[in-house]
Parts: sequence; C-alpha cells; structure tokens
Amino acid sequence: MTPIDLLIEARWIIPVEPADTTLEHHAVAIKDERIVAVLPIGEARTRFDAAETVPLPDHILIPGLVNLHCHAAMTLMRGLADDLPLMRWLQEAIWPTEARHASHAFVRDGSLLAAAEMLQGGITTCNDMYFFPEATAEAFDRLGLRATLGITVLDFPCQYATDADDFLRKGLAARDAWRDHPLIGFALAPHAPYTVSDKTFERVGALAAELEIPIHIHLHETAGEIADSLRDFGQRPITRLEALGLLGPNLIGVHAVHLAPEDIDRLALHQCAVAHCPTSNMKLASGTAPITRLVHRGLSVGLGTDGAASNNRLDLFREMRQASLLAKLDSGDASALPAHRALRMATLDGARALGLDGQIGSLVAGKSADITAVRIDEPDAFPCYHPVSHLLHVLDRRCVSDVWVGGQQRLKRGKLLQITNTELLGIARLWQNKLRQ
Amino acid sequence: MTPIDLLIEARWIIPVEPADTTLEHHAVAIKDERIVAVLPIGEARTRFDAAETVPLPDHILIPGLVNLHCHAAMTLMRGLADDLPLMRWLQEAIWPTEARHASHAFVRDGSLLAAAEMLQGGITTCNDMYFFPEATAEAFDRLGLRATLGITVLDFPCQYATDADDFLRKGLAARDAWRDHPLIGFALAPHAPYTVSDKTFERVGALAAELEIPIHIHLHETAGEIADSLRDFGQRPITRLEALGLLGPNLIGVHAVHLAPEDIDRLALHQCAVAHCPTSNMKLASGTAPITRLVHRGLSVGLGTDGAASNNRLDLFREMRQASLLAKLDSGDASALPAHRALRMATLDGARALGLDGQIGSLVAGKSADITAVRIDEPDAFPCYHPVSHLLHVLDRRCVSDVWVGGQQRLKRGKLLQITNTELLGIARLWQNKLRQ
Repeated sequence: MTPIDLLIEARWIIPVEPADTTLEHHAVAIKDERIVAVLPIGEARTRFDAAETVPLPDHILIPGLVNLHCHAAMTLMRGLADDLPLMRWLQEAIWPTEARHASHAFVRDGSLLAAAEMLQGGITTCNDMYFFPEATAEAFDRLGLRATLGITVLDFPCQYATDADDFLRKGLAARDAWRDHPLIGFALAPHAPYTVSDKTFERVGALAAELEIPIHIHLHETAGEIADSLRDFGQRPITRLEALGLLGPNLIGVHAVHLAPEDIDRLALHQCAVAHCPTSNMKLASGTAPITRLVHRGLSVGLGTDGAASNNRLDLFREMRQASLLAKLDSGDASALPAHRALRMATLDGARALGLDGQIGSLVAGKSADITAVRIDEPDAFPCYHPVSHLLHVLDRRCVSDVWVGGQQRLKRGKLLQITNTELLGIARLWQNKLRQ
Repeated sequence: MTPIDLLIEARWIIPVEPADTTLEHHAVAIKDERIVAVLPIGEARTRFDAAETVPLPDHILIPGLVNLHCHAAMTLMRGLADDLPLMRWLQEAIWPTEARHASHAFVRDGSLLAAAEMLQGGITTCNDMYFFPEATAEAFDRLGLRATLGITVLDFPCQYATDADDFLRKGLAARDAWRDHPLIGFALAPHAPYTVSDKTFERVGALAAELEIPIHIHLHETAGEIADSLRDFGQRPITRLEALGLLGPNLIGVHAVHLAPEDIDRLALHQCAVAHCPTSNMKLASGTAPITRLVHRGLSVGLGTDGAASNNRLDLFREMRQASLLAKLDSGDASALPAHRALRMATLDGARALGLDGQIGSLVAGKSADITAVRIDEPDAFPCYHPVSHLLHVLDRRCVSDVWVGGQQRLKRGKLLQITNTELLGIARLWQNKLRQ
C-alpha cells in the first residue's frame, strides 16, 4: 500500500485527457499536491493508503476550470450599466467610475468577491487583466485561486499609473514581489490596439520574450476597432501586431470576433491563442467569434467570462454552454462543439494558452490536483443518460460542491473554506454604497 | 382594516404593468385567489388585516413566468441525444423512443417531473403540446401548475392515436373531462405543417373557432421545412396556413426562425403570436428568430423552453437571458431587448398569446395571484445596482424561493409543497432504466 494524502472517489470522472472519456466509479489519488493516479475505485483502495478519503457518490469530477479572460476587480461594477454598446459603456459608465474609485483597496476587495464567485463556480485558474495587480494577487492568494495576472499597459494616464513606463515599472515590481508564489504568475497585458502605441507594443514584445511570459490583449472585439486602426495605422490590428513582432504562441488574443480570412491565417501561422468570451460578445452586441474555424485551424481557444460589469457573472458553466450553442448557431451545424470539446476549451485549452498545460487542465498523473466536483442529485437533473451532456446543458455552477487547487481544498460541500459569506457581503455592500454616490 | 387572505411584503416588486417599473418596499395583497392591491408596505399594514403575512426582505417579486412552448413529458428523454440537427434528432432518437415507450404512465410521470422543475424555477403557466394530454392534466393538477394543454393532431399513427380523427376525438374527450378545472384549459395543437394535411388543418381551424381556443403549432423552424413545403404544396407554410384560414390572433406559431418579409407581414396582418425558443433553436442549429422585428411589428412574442430533450432544461430564466443576448447579437444593437422587456416576454406577452392576459401575466389588482419570489442574498449576486438587470443577467432559477398559483402556495423556501424529491427521483430512475434498455 502506497501512502497518499487524498483519495477522491467519484461516480464519474471526465479527465479531458484522454479525449471524449467518461470514467465510472473511478478515483483520483493525490500526493504532495499532485495527481498520482486516476483508476477504478476498487483498485485504488487496494493500492493506496490515503490520509483522507472523500466519497462523492453522486458527482462528476472534472479538471478545475480555467477562466482565460477576466477583470476580477470589476465585480464591484456588476450590472452597473447594461444595454449599451462597448464604447458608450466604457466611456459613459466604466471609465468614469474607475477614474473616481480605482485604488488598491477597490481592486483587492473586488478581486476577493471575484475569487469567491469563481471558486464556488468551479474555476481554479484565472487569467486576469486590471490595474493594481498586486492587490489582485493579495486577494487571490488569500482564497487560494491559481492565477496569471496581467501587467496592464496603456498609453494614457489613470488612477494607477501616469504613462506606459509607469505601468510597466509598477507591474514588474508586483511580479518581483510575488515571484516565488506557487499559484501566481504574471503576463504582459497591453490593453488593446486602440489604447497602446507602437513604441509601447515593441517594449511589451521584448519584455515578454525576455521574461518568457504570455501577452494578454483585447483584439478585434468590434468592427469599429478595425475601422479605426485602418484609418490611424493603415493596417488591421492583427497585421499591425504582426509587424511589431507581437504575434506568437504566447499571445492570447481576447474576443477575436471580427476576423477576416487573412486575420485567421496570421493567428494560425503564429500559433496564437484566443480567449472566447461568448456572453460578453453577445451582451455588447460585438458579434460572434468564428470559433469552429479557429478550432479547425488548430488554434488553442479557451473560454473567458470577461468582467462582471459586462457579463454579469463570472461563470464558466454558462460560457461553456453558450460557446457550444453559439458555435452550433453560427456554423449552422448542430454537431459543432459537442460537450466534451466545450469542456476541453474551459480546461485544457485555456491551460495551454497560458503555457500551463504541463501543470493543469486535465486529470492525469503528474499534474497538479486542481479538481472540481459537480453534484447530480436534484430531481431537475434527471433522467441522466450522458453525464457530459448534463455538465453542459443541465447542471450549473450551483451544482459545484467541492474544489481543490494544488491538492488543497478551497470549497467543501458548497462552502468556501477561506472566507465567510458575512465578510463577502460586507465588502460588497461597502462598495455598492460608495459607487452609488 | 379590510380582511385579506395573504400579504406578501417584498424588498422589490417588478409588476410588469406599468412597464419598466421597479417598486421598492411594496406588498401584494391577496384575497380569494386574486390580487387586491400592490402598495407600499407601510400602507398595506394599515389598510389590510391579513390572515397570513409573508415577509420577503431580500427578494424580488415578479409575475409567475409563462412557458409558451413545452413538451412536458419529454423530460423523460432529457439529454438522450445531443449534437444532432432537428430531423436526424427526431428520426433517430426521439420518434423511435416515443414509439417504444409513449403511454399514459409515461406522459403522467414525465409531466410530473416537468411540472416540479417548472414550479421550482418560477414558472406558473405552461402551454404544452404532447400526446395523452389527459395524463399531463393529471400531473399538472396534482402539482398545481396552470396550463393550456394541446389537443395534438398529426396525420400519421402513433402509440396514442391512429389518425387525425382519432387524435381529435381523444383530445376533445380529454378537454371535456377537464372542462371545469380552474387552472387547466386546452388548445388545438396541429403538430407542424409537415405532419398535418390540408384537410386536417381545415377541421382544426373550424374547431378552434367554434371552441374559441388557441391554435399551437411548430412553424418555420428550419429552412428545410420551407423548402419541403414549396416542393410539396407550392407555398411557404405560413402562406399555406393563411389560405387554409388558420392565421389569427389565436394562433401561436412556435419557433418562427426562418421568416421572409412576406411571412412577417402575414403574421402581423393576422395578429398572430410567436413562441420564441432561443436555446432550442441554437442547440438544433435551426437559426435565430427575428425577434426585434416581430416585436416592432406589434406581435405578441412569448418565450418557450421547448422540451427537455432539446434544451435540456425547462428554465425560463435561461430563456429570458438568452432571448435578450440573442436579440442584441442578431440586431447588432446592444440596447435591443433590455431586461424589463425580456421579463415582459416571459410573463405578460406569453399570457396574451394564450388569451389569458386578463387573468395573469402582471401583478395588478384584479388578476390571479400567480407570483414568483426570487432571492438576492448570496455574495455572488452583489453588488446589486439594478434588480431587474440582476434578474436577467445574474440570478438564476435556483434563486426562486416561493411560488404561488392562484393565491395558493406551491413552493415554499425552495421546497415543493405537493411532492417530495424522493418521489420525483424514484420516477426519474424508473424511466431512465426503462429507456436505457
């Protein structure tokens, strides 16, 4: 008998690797924060001597979900303004509020609410982009969420920084301060082609190569963005980024809604990744990203919630389902993006985009034990013929019962272990009152 | 002090009439199953002497939701087959299963599960279409759901009936048996233009006029349906139905995805209603119904879940949000179908389509007390700046706490009063085992 730390015994396991697989009555064995085996429960009991055994007889185990695009702190602006197109929404609602309120405390508190919401909804990794990343790090560290935090860069001043140099200096200092953290890494996050100059992009590209970290950028979100770029730079944004040397396997282009065939060719040539945010794109009437075409060209396409100000929920169960429904609608093919494939987007493909697929994204031996358990026990989830179909179309984030990050439990029978609802509600009410004024 | 039966005091009330209104700290006073007043809580306490007072300090009250298109019994086939286009899904999965299993018991049990799911999700009225409507009536009556049940008619034989005459005879007998029920009414439900002959349509039209009941029909769901109709009848389905005298204010056309301008003109001219089923249309890759154009032409557009075999959840919270998101995407206008308007679709407009808007669909004095209470008390629902925005984009059916139909409580703090989870799970497992064989 091999001693291990934890044995999770489940009715079903969908490990994502191998593909299209649903295991029944299997267990995950965990030692030193890593998965050591995925095997039948009976065999597990004879092979392993577990310090703790968690029986989940009505549950599906899946890899922890990877949120490939978020602005966690914007949770404080949840539902502040709806029914506006992107530029009016930014200029009339979001940017003025940020100008008045953005601060270390705002970002820490908003990120605490966001991390709580994400963990309760089965998300174990978040690729975030916002100001004051050191405040987000503080919040995510407290709740134990794995993250890649954007070193945000803009070419105009805000509450956080005065110019591109200042953004970079502050972001890199935050990276240094959190350098040895096991769960927290950094990316360079030039906000968008319409807010960042050529000169700054060149610096960002050089830094990303030097530090070997991802580049996280909003890209081709609206038709207007492309028209403005043609007017101002004589090039489509993706063409401009290619000329500036920014396209590569470490680039995560967020949204990628308006793509001409030449744009797709460039993204494919450079093996870029895409963060698909279907709800945000629908809500802001931005359009439909050509996901089935991107997938066929071999791009890594992960799923993002975007911020709670434009979604209005940080819920990857919703995004998985929406991605699948939207792909079927957009391609006119009801077999497009079936359930297993959508789950892979929300896990392994997101991990690959972040360069973390060696560590997370599937339940296989050797990877970190980032695991989400989903209950199937309410009458409205029955009958159940295919658990993976239910995961996509029937269950929702309220069915998430238990979550582990790096083998450490974060959510237990629906309750967060690191923070109370009372504290979370207090934080939310404090900022709600401030922002209302 | 006027004696009343029930006073529900809520943090917020969104009555749907008047439009775009959110009342704060208001109450609904109920006597003899009807609403007698909607007024500030303080005033209510001085004017009324209530036998029962229900304080809902963290809740939004809305009119009970109206599901304008469902096949309740198909809940037993929830998730049986996904990722197939409509005709393959029907011919390879659904019809063979129905041929083997459809029976009075199948329909009663499937409808019990469906009614439980709908009431728990805040739906108080269901417009259903299936075989053995008397079995659906039995189930809905037991759980206390308001319903319009389709007298289904097809021109080919099935387990339930041998030909159109037999369908009509059996359906009309069911209507006679349930004639005096306060919550259950009937409609004529010719299945679709591709399954019903001209002769049968003429009988249906005459019967609907004579009995003054709605006609409930699948209409222009796929491009193939229209091509087939042009080939077989030399006409588009809507043109054919017009020629047969079926179009009128009592016609509810379900799906209405593929509409040429002339189709919209005909539907508008005859003041037809439309049941929009956005999730089903996306999942089966049928297309996007031109909802904003239909609404601008003054048609009553309600929302339907379709059956759980093609959705896979009977959840009007999902359909409200999806309708709004899809309208924004389809029109390219982020202000399309805002939250108040989507809620009206799921309540008053559905009621109007059924000819029930004098009785239900809004919280105003004189109407039946069909009321849904939705909790806002979890941290992931905060901050909350606009309750109606949260209703659409943040909350979900798990937040429904209490439901009344005709002043009678059906759901109390999340628990159904007429049936236990144990019984529901037993029913689901029984049929799951049978259908698996």
